[in-house]
Formats: sequence, structure tokens, C-alpha cells
Amino acid sequence: MQYHVDGSLVPAAEATVSVEDRGFRYGDAAFETCRAYGGEVFAWDRHAARLERTCETLGMPDAVPDDLPVRVADTLDANDLRDAYVRVSVTRGVQPGKLTPDAETDPTVVVTTKPLPRGGVDGERVWDGGATVQTVKTRRTPSNAVPADAKTHNYLNGIMARLELRRVSNEGYSPDEALLRDQSGALAEGTTSNVFFVDDGALHTPAAGELLPGITRELVLALAREESFPVETGTYDVDDLRSADEAFLTNTTWEVRPIEQADGIRVGSGPITALCQRLYDELVEERCY
Amino acid sequence: MQYHVDGSLVPAAEATVSVEDRGFRYGDAAFETCRAYGGEVFAWDRHAARLERTCETLGMPDAVPDDLPVRVADTLDANDLRDAYVRVSVTRGVQPGKLTPDAETDPTVVVTTKPLPRGGVDGERVWDGGATVQTVKTRRTPSNAVPADAKTHNYLNGIMARLELRRVSNEGYSPDEALLRDQSGALAEGTTSNVFFVDDGALHTPAAGELLPGITRELVLALAREESFPVETGTYDVDDLRSADEAFLTNTTWEVRPIEQADGIRVGSGPITALCQRLYDELVEERCY
Repeated sequence: MQYHVDGSLVPAAEATVSVEDRGFRYGDAAFETCRAYGGEVFAWDRHAARLERTCETLGMPDAVPDDLPVRVADTLDANDLRDAYVRVSVTRGVQPGKLTPDAETDPTVVVTTKPLPRGGVDGERVWDGGATVQTVKTRRTPSNAVPADAKTHNYLNGIMARLELRRVSNEGYSPDEALLRDQSGALAEGTTSNVFFVDDGALHTPAAGELLPGITRELVLALAREESFPVETGTYDVDDLRSADEAFLTNTTWEVRPIEQADGIRVGSGPITALCQRLYDELVEERCY
Repeated sequence: MQYHVDGSLVPAAEATVSVEDRGFRYGDAAFETCRAYGGEVFAWDRHAARLERTCETLGMPDAVPDDLPVRVADTLDANDLRDAYVRVSVTRGVQPGKLTPDAETDPTVVVTTKPLPRGGVDGERVWDGGATVQTVKTRRTPSNAVPADAKTHNYLNGIMARLELRRVSNEGYSPDEALLRDQSGALAEGTTSNVFFVDDGALHTPAAGELLPGITRELVLALAREESFPVETGTYDVDDLRSADEAFLTNTTWEVRPIEQADGIRVGSGPITALCQRLYDELVEERCY
């Protein structure tokens, strides 16, 4: 594999950043996880816009290089990949050893990739079966501490949540995803996914504010709104999910993945989940293949 | 300069970590900032204990290598440094690209250093004059999101706080440190320091729980308790600090630094601050020179 680091393609084994890079020292970096289908990075405009927004939030509005799409394309080409996972990171770069960032930034830009199966209508899922999700004690870092809509290298909140799954796992029970509640106790999101559920024929997902609104979440909401069934974002309890008729998770890699079990309670797929999957696959097919 | 990376001394320019290291990808790493005086790492036992504790919190209890003191000493020797800043990081290392950590860990250990002046009774401060501190809107990440007593590479909470100082700074006013309140509005800490104040002859500092209890804070509390004046940890308001008779910040590098101004209000040093400085300097002198 070859990765793109600081402007050049390098063998993966030599893809490194300085230990003085703020991305390493402090997790002071923005990132995006994208998926390429048939050589095309899906929803690139949305990912690029969020990356810009995260960099603005982090006080480095000019950090994203203009040629980022070229770097991504070169990385895919160098690895001869058309269907792939792509991770793009923009760090604040190497700066003198003090916490306050310099206004002048020389960002470090990293693009890594790995193969994924084909997507779209004839695609293959990256997951086997529905997800088992478990609500954890760890609460979502509130937006007043680190803005929730910034996608950054500060991922310990999610890691603490995933570590809790270790403790509840046993032979017959091994959750795939941890569900976080916000500080007020409302259902927020999975550690790497957004959550949707269907109740009385309406599709629901927690409103933005105290969660990272995913690109797949945005697309599913847009697709669903074009259909005839009601769509609502709001404040929900974990019980709303547990007692739902259907439920699913979304993220770039999983796309639309049914929730088989929430806190030990069976939820599962259904017609609206299947429709969302179908609409998403068609969008991927239409745009990328 | 030479740094110690993954078991070897390397020139600083070649001191790097893989872009697939979880320390880079997620800030999934523990660290300590220490100070060497006269070739001796001050309060090493306390730093080592906290590093162990942070690694335990992060679910990697065996990550700290037994020979860490040797690596630190070798790094100081290689750079011919006796009075120095030392930063030790232990990351979860390179693991496959999923958020849930593997139970098996091959940690990456990094030691960096830079020269500092002599400390102790005849020492030179690293700062000029008292600190100007400013309460910011950013609130301390609560312990239910990421345990507050873990010292990790997830430092964006403090960086968001420091970025706020950019906006309030003008020619005559440029705060040195941002003060964070916890989620309930109580005074918590500075972004890289703990805060103390003196009221009616008693020394106060916010109780542990929603802050990172610094090693210097622990030492100052221990020294103060050996003296005749009352010492109290509790829940305080920013107003308690603003209206205090004296106030100071503590951290490993600054040691005991008077707060000259809090939110534009003069506070300053006084006999108890001066005594704490003196006792701390004497402890350093006695142990290290």
C-alpha cells in the first residue's frame, strides 16, 4: 500500500508524522472517512465541506489544501483501488511546544486507504447481519467542551464507550456498537454511527446539536424526505429505540445497517429500513458506477 | 536533539510515529510532562504512577515499559541535558483500522525533551511576571465523557479554550491561561494548570473529580498541609478566585506562578503564595541538587 503524507506518496511502512506534530501530541486534527465506489469518492462535496468546517472550528480555516481531491485520487490510483475506504486527516502541523496554536499553520495532510467491496445495487455489505448495540455509561462529550459537529482526532470518548463493551461481552453476546447518551440523558449516537428508528411508520433520528451529524445520516434524511413517509428529528430516549418497530445505524462504511438488538431487545429491520437501504444503494449506483 | 521512539534514540528530525498509530489516529495515548532538575527527574514516582493509572483507564494496563526511567535518562544524557522539560507518551500503538481496541497491545513509547533553566532555591523561573487568566465559555470535558484524571493526547478541550483567548486579546490584554469551569459552572482548572487561591488566610483549590489533579498541585497541597495555615479543597465559583487575597497557578513547568489578573481583576501574590513557592523550590533543591 501507498499513502499520501505531506504532499507525497510513500510506502505505508514509511508513512509517518513527526512526534512534534500537534496531530500526534494533542489529537489536534480534523479528519474525514470517505468511501470510493468504482473509482469515485462518494459525496465528496459533503465530506470536503465538513472537513473545512471542522478546520474552521479548530481555528485553522485555511488548512485544507486546494489539491486535496487530487491527493485522494492519486492515493487510490497508486494502490489500484476503485472500491475503497479513504481516510483524510488535516493536522495543525508541527509547532513549538505550547498549547496555544500559532495563527500561522503549516498543516500536515495524510490520506490512507484500504480495499472495500463493491457498493451500489449489486454491492456487497461490509457487515454480516444486523448490528447488536448496547447503551453505555460513558456520555457523549458535550458541545460546550468540544463542538460536537467537529470530526477530530480526539476520539477517546468513543474509545471509552467501546471499552465498556469489553466488560459486557460474553460468549453469546458481543455488541458491535456502543450507544452514547448526551449529558441530559437523551439518545445521541453510536461511537462511529448515527442511529435511526421507525415508530408508527415515521422515521426518527436524534437532532443535531450534541452529536456528529454524519454524511450518510444527511443523505438518508434527504432520500427519506423525498419519499412519502414522515421524517422527524428530535430528542429521544433510549427506550424509544428499544421499543421501535425498526431501527438502523448509518455511517460511511456500513451505509444503512439494521439494528438487530438494542440493549438485549430485538428490534430488527422492516420495510422502511429496506427502502432506505435500497434508495441509498441506488444513489451510489447512479453516481458512481 | 535526540528523542527516544519505540525503544531507540533517534535524531529529532527522524522521530516519527506511523500514521496508523492510534496515538495519531485517535489521540489514543497517555502522557506525562516532567521536569528534570540537575539531571534528576523530579517527582518521577508520582508521574510514573499517574501514567500507569491513565493507561489502566484506557484499558491498556501493561502498556508502560519497565525500562521507562532508563529511556528517560538516556534521552537526557544523549542531549547532554540536566535541567530540562521531558514529555513521555505511551500510545496504544498500531492496530487494525477499527475503533474498538484490541486487548493485545504493542504500545509506542516516545520521550522528547528540551532545555529549561535551573530550578530550586537558586533557580530561574520560566515565566516573566504573574499570569493573566481569563475564564472562557468552553467548559471542561466532564468525567463521564473522558475520565478527568486521565492525562491523554485528547487535548482539544484545552485548545478550544486557548483559541478563545485569541478573540479577547488586544494590545494591552493578552491572557496567558484560559480558566475552565466544569459542566455545573464551578471553577475547574486552567488548560495546563491547576488553580489555587487564598481567602482569609486559608489556601483553597478545587477538589478533584472534574479536573486533572496535577503533580505540582499534589505537592503544593502536601507542603501546605505541613505548614500552619489551613488548606481546603472544595467547590468554588470563579468569583471566589476574582475576589481572593492571593492566587496562583501550578504546573510542572511553571511550578508556582502567581495570578496577576483574573478576568481583568487584579489579584496577585502575597505571603502564602511566596511561602508555597519557597517550600516548592526548597523541595526541588533538596531532592535534585
